[in-house]
Amino acid sequence: MRLIKAVLAYNGSFFHGWQVQKSSPTVQAAVEKALAKIHGRAVKVCAASRTDSGVHAQGQVIHFHSDARLSDRELRKALDHHLPPAISVLSLRTPDRPFHARFDAKGKLYRYTIYNGKRKPLFKGSCVSWIPYGLNIRKMRKAASVLAGKHDFTSFASPNGTSQRKVRTLQRLIVKRSGDDVIIEARGDGFLMNMLRIIVGTLVEVGRNKLHPEEMERILEARDRKAAGHTADSRGLMLVKVYY
Amino acid sequence: MRLIKAVLAYNGSFFHGWQVQKSSPTVQAAVEKALAKIHGRAVKVCAASRTDSGVHAQGQVIHFHSDARLSDRELRKALDHHLPPAISVLSLRTPDRPFHARFDAKGKLYRYTIYNGKRKPLFKGSCVSWIPYGLNIRKMRKAASVLAGKHDFTSFASPNGTSQRKVRTLQRLIVKRSGDDVIIEARGDGFLMNMLRIIVGTLVEVGRNKLHPEEMERILEARDRKAAGHTADSRGLMLVKVYY
Repeated sequence: MRLIKAVLAYNGSFFHGWQVQKSSPTVQAAVEKALAKIHGRAVKVCAASRTDSGVHAQGQVIHFHSDARLSDRELRKALDHHLPPAISVLSLRTPDRPFHARFDAKGKLYRYTIYNGKRKPLFKGSCVSWIPYGLNIRKMRKAASVLAGKHDFTSFASPNGTSQRKVRTLQRLIVKRSGDDVIIEARGDGFLMNMLRIIVGTLVEVGRNKLHPEEMERILEARDRKAAGHTADSRGLMLVKVYY
Repeated sequence: MRLIKAVLAYNGSFFHGWQVQKSSPTVQAAVEKALAKIHGRAVKVCAASRTDSGVHAQGQVIHFHSDARLSDRELRKALDHHLPPAISVLSLRTPDRPFHARFDAKGKLYRYTIYNGKRKPLFKGSCVSWIPYGLNIRKMRKAASVLAGKHDFTSFASPNGTSQRKVRTLQRLIVKRSGDDVIIEARGDGFLMNMLRIIVGTLVEVGRNKLHPEEMERILEARDRKAAGHTADSRGLMLVKVYY
């Protein structure tokens, strides 16, 4: 039996998030089904991030234990082959030392893409959030600079989350325009439930002049979910990288 | 009552082709439903190309008659608003002279995109055909150069098509590589049923060394669908432009 670390990419629009659910297709269920086919027995998988329904990944990290008589390369190919077209195994290897995808993660990088064009996003509709209205990027940046750093993010977390400690550090929170897209990149040591989607929803309200950048401090201090903006659409969110 | 010419773009993966069908969603049905909402009565629409199920468009041209008390600009906005997110109205105007979207068309430009990378096309799976095997572009170009020009394309047409005359002229048939994609562009005065998809399927067989470029002449001369290659997947096909 050996420990395996693998990196997955997936199009979240085909799944109800990472975590196994009774009746809906999830990424975890698809991966465990593929591994069960290869191993002839149930194999449990642990992921760095339990991504929400509709959220995409280009660098989700998982670990599991395998007794398959296959090289790492063969196991990667077999797993990729048995997975649906919307999930790809980017890499797979036996780590040199003990490794836990979730508990060893030191940080994560997420990217949120808002398509800000006037025309419908015909061919990327499941991978972006569409906001056809003007967005004041300068103000969004100003608000983001207040949220970056170490804070109690209770106001920016779903009350359904299970984390007791709500203090997190955002090493980076940037807003940039790229063609018709507005991209928000966030690197942090950890993210509370829906945290980045609530941050994006709040920044969008700033961009639409419904909130003032100066109000961010008040929102943080309120430690109340109702103080922040709406939870942005999951389809714009991508887990880019997990840091160890 | 005035004549209207409009240009549509759509993601064909959400529709069973252009033409109205009894129980499946089609682009024509969606457009006529949106126009019925605006006009309060049934409005028939005619398109330049009756695209197959799964085929996309970035330049489909339609015409219809309207008695709506709206400017062209207002009508474009209203139609776009009532259409589903997968269909966009790129332009709309009242032509200066009589105009028929289908019968006045002098030619069409199609583009077929093969994603030729090894990794799964996670985020563009519905807009490309995925061929992870090596393709010999040089041989595909050689075969394409034989098919370009004026020929009887019976071998490259579905036997279900209704056109009696099978002679068509391909002014252009090019094969090019663009990053991980192999792109086939075809401009012709008209296309028989499934013609471009059968041409692409045949070129792919040449690219995979299952057919020799020299066999194209024999296939054309056979005037028999069975002589040519398979019909390529519809999802790689895009109607780019209609010429008048």
